[in-house]
Amino acid sequence: MFNLDHYLDRTGQRINTALDKLLPPETAAPPTIHKAMRYSIFAGGKRIRPVLTLAACEAVHGRTAAAMPLACAVECIHTYSLIHDDLPCMDDDDLRRGRPTNHKVFGEGIAVLAGDALLTHAFTLAATKAEYVKELAFAAGSLRLIAGQVQDLENESRPATLAEVKTTHLNKTAALITTSIRLGAMAGNASHAQLKRLTRYGQNLGLAFQVIDDVLDATSTKEIMGKSVRADQRNEKSTYTKLLGVEKSRAYAAELIADAQKQLRGFDNKADPLRAIADFFLTRKH
Amino acid sequence: MFNLDHYLDRTGQRINTALDKLLPPETAAPPTIHKAMRYSIFAGGKRIRPVLTLAACEAVHGRTAAAMPLACAVECIHTYSLIHDDLPCMDDDDLRRGRPTNHKVFGEGIAVLAGDALLTHAFTLAATKAEYVKELAFAAGSLRLIAGQVQDLENESRPATLAEVKTTHLNKTAALITTSIRLGAMAGNASHAQLKRLTRYGQNLGLAFQVIDDVLDATSTKEIMGKSVRADQRNEKSTYTKLLGVEKSRAYAAELIADAQKQLRGFDNKADPLRAIADFFLTRKH
Repeated sequence: MFNLDHYLDRTGQRINTALDKLLPPETAAPPTIHKAMRYSIFAGGKRIRPVLTLAACEAVHGRTAAAMPLACAVECIHTYSLIHDDLPCMDDDDLRRGRPTNHKVFGEGIAVLAGDALLTHAFTLAATKAEYVKELAFAAGSLRLIAGQVQDLENESRPATLAEVKTTHLNKTAALITTSIRLGAMAGNASHAQLKRLTRYGQNLGLAFQVIDDVLDATSTKEIMGKSVRADQRNEKSTYTKLLGVEKSRAYAAELIADAQKQLRGFDNKADPLRAIADFFLTRKH
Repeated sequence: MFNLDHYLDRTGQRINTALDKLLPPETAAPPTIHKAMRYSIFAGGKRIRPVLTLAACEAVHGRTAAAMPLACAVECIHTYSLIHDDLPCMDDDDLRRGRPTNHKVFGEGIAVLAGDALLTHAFTLAATKAEYVKELAFAAGSLRLIAGQVQDLENESRPATLAEVKTTHLNKTAALITTSIRLGAMAGNASHAQLKRLTRYGQNLGLAFQVIDDVLDATSTKEIMGKSVRADQRNEKSTYTKLLGVEKSRAYAAELIADAQKQLRGFDNKADPLRAIADFFLTRKH
């Protein structure tokens, strides 16, 4: 039987070791910026995106060593986006995963630069092939990840339709998750047909992730989530649960995950991690 | 006779046309971010770095069309660094080249994201070859351009030595100027020996640029410079002129430019633009 907890632990440790090796050391001049980069990279994230990169590489029978720099690149992008998101001029968050945010520790100027540096470093890591860089830069750029950030800011100031919320989520969350998976598959020399199926798996997974986030925010408690809940409600922000209700949102997430699983039918047991992760997305409690 | 003014005009126009073509249109969703990106890209910069990319490509008898996306990538990096530099949490500047800075027009959140988006887009443009991406990401990263920003912030809070000021300038200014030149030479299929000489040309040029900047700040007037002067003096910031005096700083810049010219000796008249630009760096009045 495939044990997801064990897989996530083991793979997360491999990723942490690789990140430690692939980021400049804290002692590199000037130490301030390298300390700030490492503070947020090693702030206890779940490493979902880089795990997906490695799992997608395995699913197509690739060597995960080839996918590891890409897995780390994706985590650098994710971490940079959190640092910039948390800034006072954006979401203005003091805490992330129970620790002070980057700008609270290093000041806003260094936090902006630490985000910039992680974003830049991601492209150093992805530059084993030009096509990886194109893939990553598109997902992280003004037409996807950054578009999602902007749309998220704009949705806060006026009511959004379901279509607008979906577009925001596709850009803000699903694009980088999909690219995490695609990069792993590409590094594992996926066939065109495999890449197409894994792309659709990723889009479903990414969108489901955000729908479940909305459901948890509307139904869970601060104690279970480890962070404040009902923030969206207080902000009168348009969410899936507000527009569809909790039950329909849950059903929609289940549909998305079912479609994601369907994409994996032609794969053998090397895709078991991807299957287990999809189920975990649907059943997670925090 | 080679006419530099004419060359800069003509090449600057070619670069502007290419930038307009290679950036997402203002109408691309969400328009806010694409307007903000274009606002700063088309804010009337002198295009020194992309001109150097094209001139270096010409100097090695390359086709400048191959260097154009790299020239635009370098300008995206330069512009992103200005947008983030101008933020209230960094240098807190309201005006740049007589126009309101990005965050004054679009707000701080969008300005952070517009910088992020230009940085990311630079790698899309450079991704014709993986080696270009490596070159650009290193120059723009935490060991060079961003290191220089951090060191600049740190030099403001305590007196710096001449060696520290030089390191800061090499990182903050010379690294991206050198890479602008190297990318053009690489796109023009420069030989190893040509690339080595052009790299040294670039380092000299980049450092001279910053020394002259210090001299002009200490000696020129607001009317000639089109911006406020003596800012460094007011901030009690360590500069070349403060540490060496104006005359020795001028002499040092002249030495650097003489060494830059020496590197071009083995090149034919296709390197005339690079020769004229080096002289222009030394004699510029603003």
